Amino acid sequence: MNPEPVRVFVTGGTFDKEYNELNGSLFFKDTHLPEMLRLGRSRIDVSISTLMMIDSLEMTAADRARIVDECGRAAEMRILITHGTDTMVETAAALATALIGDRLRSPAETKSVPGKTIVLTGAMVPYAFGSSDGLFNLGSALSFVQALQAGVYIAMNGRCFDWNRVLKNRQTGTFEAI
Amino acid sequence: MNPEPVRVFVTGGTFDKEYNELNGSLFFKDTHLPEMLRLGRSRIDVSISTLMMIDSLEMTAADRARIVDECGRAAEMRILITHGTDTMVETAAALATALIGDRLRSPAETKSVPGKTIVLTGAMVPYAFGSSDGLFNLGSALSFVQALQAGVYIAMNGRCFDWNRVLKNRQTGTFEAI
Amino acid sequence: MNPEPVRVFVTGGTFDKEYNELNGSLFFKDTHLPEMLRLGRSRIDVSISTLMMIDSLEMTAADRARIVDECGRAAEMRILITHGTDTMVETAAALATALIGDRLRSPAETKSVPGKTIVLTGAMVPYAFGSSDGLFNLGSALSFVQALQAGVYIAMNGRCFDWNRVLKNRQTGTFEAI
Amino acid sequence: MNPEPVRVFVTGGTFDKEYNELNGSLFFKDTHLPEMLRLGRSRIDVSISTLMMIDSLEMTAADRARIVDECGRAAEMRILITHGTDTMVETAAALATALIGDRLRSPAETKSVPGKTIVLTGAMVPYAFGSSDGLFNLGSALSFVQALQAGVYIAMNGRCFDWNRVLKNRQTGTFEAI
Repeated sequence: MNPEPVRVFVTGGTFDKEYNELNGSLFFKDTHLPEMLRLGRSRIDVSISTLMMIDSLEMTAADRARIVDECGRAAEMRILITHGTDTMVETAAALATALIGDRLRSPAETKSVPGKTIVLTGAMVPYAFGSSDGLFNLGSALSFVQALQAGVYIAMNGRCFDWNRVLKNRQTGTFEAI
Repeated sequence: MNPEPVRVFVTGGTFDKEYNELNGSLFFKDTHLPEMLRLGRSRIDVSISTLMMIDSLEMTAADRARIVDECGRAAEMRILITHGTDTMVETAAALATALIGDRLRSPAETKSVPGKTIVLTGAMVPYAFGSSDGLFNLGSALSFVQALQAGVYIAMNGRCFDWNRVLKNRQTGTFEAI
Repeated sequence: MNPEPVRVFVTGGTFDKEYNELNGSLFFKDTHLPEMLRLGRSRIDVSISTLMMIDSLEMTAADRARIVDECGRAAEMRILITHGTDTMVETAAALATALIGDRLRSPAETKSVPGKTIVLTGAMVPYAFGSSDGLFNLGSALSFVQALQAGVYIAMNGRCFDWNRVLKNRQTGTFEAI
Repeated sequence: MNPEPVRVFVTGGTFDKEYNELNGSLFFKDTHLPEMLRLGRSRIDVSISTLMMIDSLEMTAADRARIVDECGRAAEMRILITHGTDTMVETAAALATALIGDRLRSPAETKSVPGKTIVLTGAMVPYAFGSSDGLFNLGSALSFVQALQAGVYIAMNGRCFDWNRVLKNRQTGTFEAI
C-alpha cells in the first residue's frame, strides 16, 4: 500500500472538548490532533485544517455545506473528518449526496468530489480525559481512510460502516449497522 | 464492509511490558489487550489468545514456528499479532513464507494459511506507561486487518507495510518502506 | 510523628465528578478515594465515609449541619473532608463555629468537636480526567491533617490555610490568604 | 500557617526515570518537578535545584556529602529532597548527623544546618508512567515540610517518619516505622 497524503478536517465534537476548571463546564480550545499524532508516532503525511470547533448538535446546514465544500476542494483523495458523534451520520449523508451527485447540487460541484475516500470519526469521551476512545478511533480511522476505496464511511468502535448503513444507538453509545 | 471475526495472537513485546516497582525492572504479566479494547469501545468480534509473553529479541525459531502454526490453524481469516518491534519483520517473513508456500514446508501445511490477512503490530512504549503509542497502533492494526486483502502486513506509525518492504529504523524507532 | 487514624468524609465536588459519555454531562457515581489511596501506596489508617455526592454550589444548610454533626461524632481526632471548592470556605466556617462553640449550638454538641484537626480539600479538575490536581491535593491534605494541631483548615494549591483566612479567587481558580 | 519558601533538591531516583523507547531501558533526562507542581496547581514559593540525576543505589559518599552541603548552605529553612527509595534512609541519616552535629564536621559547618526542616521523598513508580505514586508523594512531602518543626524526615506512603525510625521493606515496597 503506497502511502498517500491524508487531509484531516477538524470540526470539533467530544473528541476535542476540554474541561474549564474555572467554571466546571466543557468547552473547545485547540484541537488535540497534532498531539495525538505525535503520541501515535504517526508517519502518515497528514495536513490538518480546523474548519470549526462545535458540538455536532449545533451544526447547521451551512456548516455541513462548508464541510462538503472543503472536501470537494481538497487536493487530497483521502480525507478524515473528526466530528461529534450525535450528527456524524447526517454529515456523512451530506457528503455522500455530494459525492454521488444529486438533484440539489450542480454538476460542477459534484465533479470535484468523486473518487475520494472520506472517513468520519469521533469520540465518546474527550481525548483530554482519562478513559478516552479518541486515540484508538484516530488510529482506526486513519487506517481505514488509507485502505478503503472511494466512498463515505464512519469509523467508530473499531469498525467501519458505509455512510448509509449505520446509526448511533444513543442508549449504548455505540454505532450499529442497519 | 461486513464485519468478520478477528483472531488476536499475543506474543508479548513492549506493548505488554509492565514496571516492577519492587526492583525497577520491566516484566510481563498479563496482556492489556482486553482493557485496551474496552477503552476503544471496540465492537469488533475479537478472540484473544496469548501464545507467549516474551521480548521479541528472545524469540526463537521454535517460537516463530508456533506462531505460524497457530495462524494456520486459526478458523478466522483475519489475524492480528501483537509482537515486539525488534524482530517483527522476521516473524512476518516466516508467516509470509508459510502463506505463499516455500520449499521447506509441506503442501499440507501451507494449504491452511493462504487467503488469510495477517497484521503484526506492536508499540514503542508500553501501554501501561504514559505516552504509549499502543492504543493508536491497536486501532490502526485492527482496521487494516479488517480492510486489507489476504497477505502479511506490518502496521506501525499509522501506516501499513507489506511484510517484505519494511524495516525498523533503530535510530529513529520508526518503520520505513524499503 | 505517631500515625493516628484518619477519617475521610466524602461530600462530592469536582474531585469525584465523572464524564457521562452517553449525554456529555458531568455527574457523580462513586468516590475515587480508595483508588487514589491505592495509587499513592498510602499506608495511613484511613476510614472513608461518603456523606453526600453533590456539587458544593448545591450544598444546603442542612447538608452542612450533617457534615458538622458527623465530624463531631467521629471517633477519629483527624478528619479529612473532600468538598467542592466553590463553598469549601463556607463549610469550613460552619465547622469552625461548631468547633470553637457558638451561641447557636448546645454545649453538649460542641464538646464532642474540640481538639480535632479537620482539613478540607478538593480539586479544580476531576480526578478521572487528565491533568487533575486531585492526587496532589489528596497527598497534601492527608499530610496536613496528620501534622497540624487542632483546628479547621483548607488545603489547596499545596498550601494550608486557617479556615478564616482564606478565600477562593474565582478568576484564577486558586485559594489565597486574606 | 504562614507560607515559607521551600527549596527542592532533585537527586534522581525512580521519581524522575523515563522510558527510552529506542532501547527499552530506563534513564534520566530532566526532572518532572516543575510539571508536577503545575499539575498540582501549587502556589508554594518553591525553588528547584537539580543536584544530580542518579539511581540511589549508585549514590556515593561524595554525592551524599554534596547533598548535606547544599542543604547546609541553602537560605531556605524548609527543604524537600527527591531521592531514590533504596538508600533514602542512608541519606537522611547523613543529613541528620550533620544537622545534630557530629565529630566529623566542624562547628562552623553544623551551625548552618540546625533549625531546618528537611523532608526526603521519592516514588515506587516513575512519574512518567501510569500508576505512579509520585504526585501523591510530592503533595504529601511538600505539606510535611511546611508543617513540621526542624528535623530530618522521610515522607512515603502518605506518612512521615523520623529519619532514625524508618526502613524500607523491600518485600512490600513500603516504608515502615522501626
